[in-house]
Amino acid sequence: MPDRSEITESGRPWADLHERIEASDAAGAAEALADFSLEDQKLVMSHLPTEEQALLMESLLAGKAAEILENLPDALVADILEGMPTKAAAGIVEELPGSVGADVLREMQTQETEAVLAEIDDPEEAEKLRTRSEYPWDTAGGLMRTSFASFSEKATVGDVLHELGENAERYADMDVQYVYVTSATGLLRGVLRLRDLVMTQRHSPVADVMISDPVRVGVEDDFESLRSTFEEKGYIGLPVVDEAGVLAGVVTRQEVREATADHQTEDYLRSSGILGGEELRSMPMLVRCGRRLAWLGPNIVLNLIAASVIAMYEDTLQAVIALAVFLPIVSDMSGCSGNQAVAVSIRELTLGLIRPMEFIRIVWKEGILGIVNGFVLGCLLGSIAGLWKGNVYLGLVIGGALFLNTILSVLLGGMVPLILKRFKIDPALASGPILTTCTDMCGFFLVLNLASVVLTKLA
Amino acid sequence: MPDRSEITESGRPWADLHERIEASDAAGAAEALADFSLEDQKLVMSHLPTEEQALLMESLLAGKAAEILENLPDALVADILEGMPTKAAAGIVEELPGSVGADVLREMQTQETEAVLAEIDDPEEAEKLRTRSEYPWDTAGGLMRTSFASFSEKATVGDVLHELGENAERYADMDVQYVYVTSATGLLRGVLRLRDLVMTQRHSPVADVMISDPVRVGVEDDFESLRSTFEEKGYIGLPVVDEAGVLAGVVTRQEVREATADHQTEDYLRSSGILGGEELRSMPMLVRCGRRLAWLGPNIVLNLIAASVIAMYEDTLQAVIALAVFLPIVSDMSGCSGNQAVAVSIRELTLGLIRPMEFIRIVWKEGILGIVNGFVLGCLLGSIAGLWKGNVYLGLVIGGALFLNTILSVLLGGMVPLILKRFKIDPALASGPILTTCTDMCGFFLVLNLASVVLTKLA
Repeated sequence: MPDRSEITESGRPWADLHERIEASDAAGAAEALADFSLEDQKLVMSHLPTEEQALLMESLLAGKAAEILENLPDALVADILEGMPTKAAAGIVEELPGSVGADVLREMQTQETEAVLAEIDDPEEAEKLRTRSEYPWDTAGGLMRTSFASFSEKATVGDVLHELGENAERYADMDVQYVYVTSATGLLRGVLRLRDLVMTQRHSPVADVMISDPVRVGVEDDFESLRSTFEEKGYIGLPVVDEAGVLAGVVTRQEVREATADHQTEDYLRSSGILGGEELRSMPMLVRCGRRLAWLGPNIVLNLIAASVIAMYEDTLQAVIALAVFLPIVSDMSGCSGNQAVAVSIRELTLGLIRPMEFIRIVWKEGILGIVNGFVLGCLLGSIAGLWKGNVYLGLVIGGALFLNTILSVLLGGMVPLILKRFKIDPALASGPILTTCTDMCGFFLVLNLASVVLTKLA
Repeated sequence: MPDRSEITESGRPWADLHERIEASDAAGAAEALADFSLEDQKLVMSHLPTEEQALLMESLLAGKAAEILENLPDALVADILEGMPTKAAAGIVEELPGSVGADVLREMQTQETEAVLAEIDDPEEAEKLRTRSEYPWDTAGGLMRTSFASFSEKATVGDVLHELGENAERYADMDVQYVYVTSATGLLRGVLRLRDLVMTQRHSPVADVMISDPVRVGVEDDFESLRSTFEEKGYIGLPVVDEAGVLAGVVTRQEVREATADHQTEDYLRSSGILGGEELRSMPMLVRCGRRLAWLGPNIVLNLIAASVIAMYEDTLQAVIALAVFLPIVSDMSGCSGNQAVAVSIRELTLGLIRPMEFIRIVWKEGILGIVNGFVLGCLLGSIAGLWKGNVYLGLVIGGALFLNTILSVLLGGMVPLILKRFKIDPALASGPILTTCTDMCGFFLVLNLASVVLTKLA
């Protein structure tokens, strides 16, 4: 076991907490945990096995447990809640902020989600959570908050301000920057800015102050369209309506920004070979092994395909064994060059500065760069190879192969993300393996084929 | 040249715009550009060489130019402004939202920045821009907005609401969710929530409603401390004070979120070998070549060091040429396994779920995973090697090398980001090259050394 005494940062007695857990004194442990700083609570929770996490949370008051869990990744919280009695899990979900609750429910197994929802006391609340958790996390329906202030189209500015003032408590948890105006059947009619309300005569009907027929988004609108809507105009928040036009929630610029960050995290993890969502080291070992192997397995096949090129040239290699030293260098350096081009393409796609069919631009912009960089790198590595063995032909073969393979890999690296995007495949996930396999194959082929052409001069 | 007729998406006559640019009819071109959709304007701008971008922007009204530039990456806007007459550039900077203006000035050469600031009409505005642009972009001073509503501590709620109502126009561009209360000398005294104002009797002094001695951040506070402050509490915005305690600006949760996303983008670009900030394909070719080579150069050295292991075992390789096929596979597969561990460590560091000295946890959690995955992958590749040449020893050498190297690489991959973080080196930048070099070296060494031990059985 890891030495747990190392973990605490705030000087709190982690050892004491640990002893209570060992002694199965869950209540005592929960009490000790509640005294920790938020940072330490996060650390402690992430270092316990799932069963102990669940036991600890169960012993806390639901409100306190929610406060701790709120700051942990959704995937981890979902695992913890799944390990708890349904009733206790439901109690915690009720205490979580609406958006976090729905995100966590989405991460749980469908069956568990339903069981928890059935235990939630307020049926209206349960329905809201169900609705939100059923939309993909990055759509308007998945991102929207379902608590918002709405008023009848017949109200006056004074009515609205009075209501907000009288029932301040009710609105305390909402982010009341906009107030919505709806018809008797809930159809969205207009938006009121709090600022405008304050600055208007109290007896004016809201209809005079509201922005009529406001910009809105649909529950099923996807992330790309949300982001471009928020980017194009300076909105802080937008109303979300269902198919019938009924106001279902509110999505804010901040939530879209957070979703952007989450997308980038997902891209980073995928491009590093972490599939199936978040991996945390507190997750069960076999789950972690299995998910990582799911990525490594296909990669081993791709590697075998690339290396089969070497097998075809065993005779050449046998004759000039020095080539074996340069095979991995040429393939790896080309891979690095290609990855740079991949990153620039993904970035330009994200920023909307290139479109998925602009291959000519890539050929033009990456091609020249590939010629320049390929030449520099080729001369460098070629000189080293030539000087090392005192054979100018070896230098030409190695330098030439790196030169050509660099051009090829930047072209490929620039284009692959565009092609994948066009076919709606995640560029962050698939660009790397495709690029590496191709540049490895071509790198091996170029070195060995060029060498076999001048074999008599090399041996 | 790329075929520009391919580019337009909204059916607008790009060809027409192109003709006007060719004919040096900048005014006509600017007019045509103004008709494009925002998406197309971004595309068009990013596809022109820098001089043409500058010429086009110069011909537009400053307000229109600012509207277009606002949505482009800061680095690109800085390049464009540097290519324009100082007077025209200053006009555009004045029209950009304050935060964007300061970000762009920060990206420009110091000399150019000063020249532009000197041309700005309003000296107070120029001073604000200079202040903001002098702080690093991810500190409170660099992120804060400098327009905010503040009132004397002697005012009443009615005064504040009256002022906001009367001068609605003045506050229209600000994000008036909080109103600040300051002393006569500008010292921060308290924060008023708009919501509380609305819900309070008009004659109350603001001092009764305000949150006294509010949480604040200092202009020099760095990103990590800002993020944890916003994360720990649910603040929407926080006042920023200078060394003397004078209110200097306001930083919002949204801005911190955006900075988080920007940091992740920077990490992604760096880990892909794009240094020196953003690379866009509209940038000058030699700048792009140079920056990419700055990363590739050190990499070629690392590659040579790793491959030198192969050179030391030329005799072994000569005797069993089949080993050459498996050298790149073993090193590449180990690299992939190690990269997965790197990604998980970086993620856990970001989430605050691990601390930079927890090596024992890594040894424990990655070690077991490495044994399991190494065993699976080793058996797989070893079987293939053994069956291919019908030599069980070859299978044992290759499988054993991959098994051991996988364990080593996940341990190393898990630990390197922690070590780098501890020494304040960017893990995203340096983890990859360090890991790859080590796993390559060890992979080559294990394959060739194990092979030389059983050489008589292999040959």
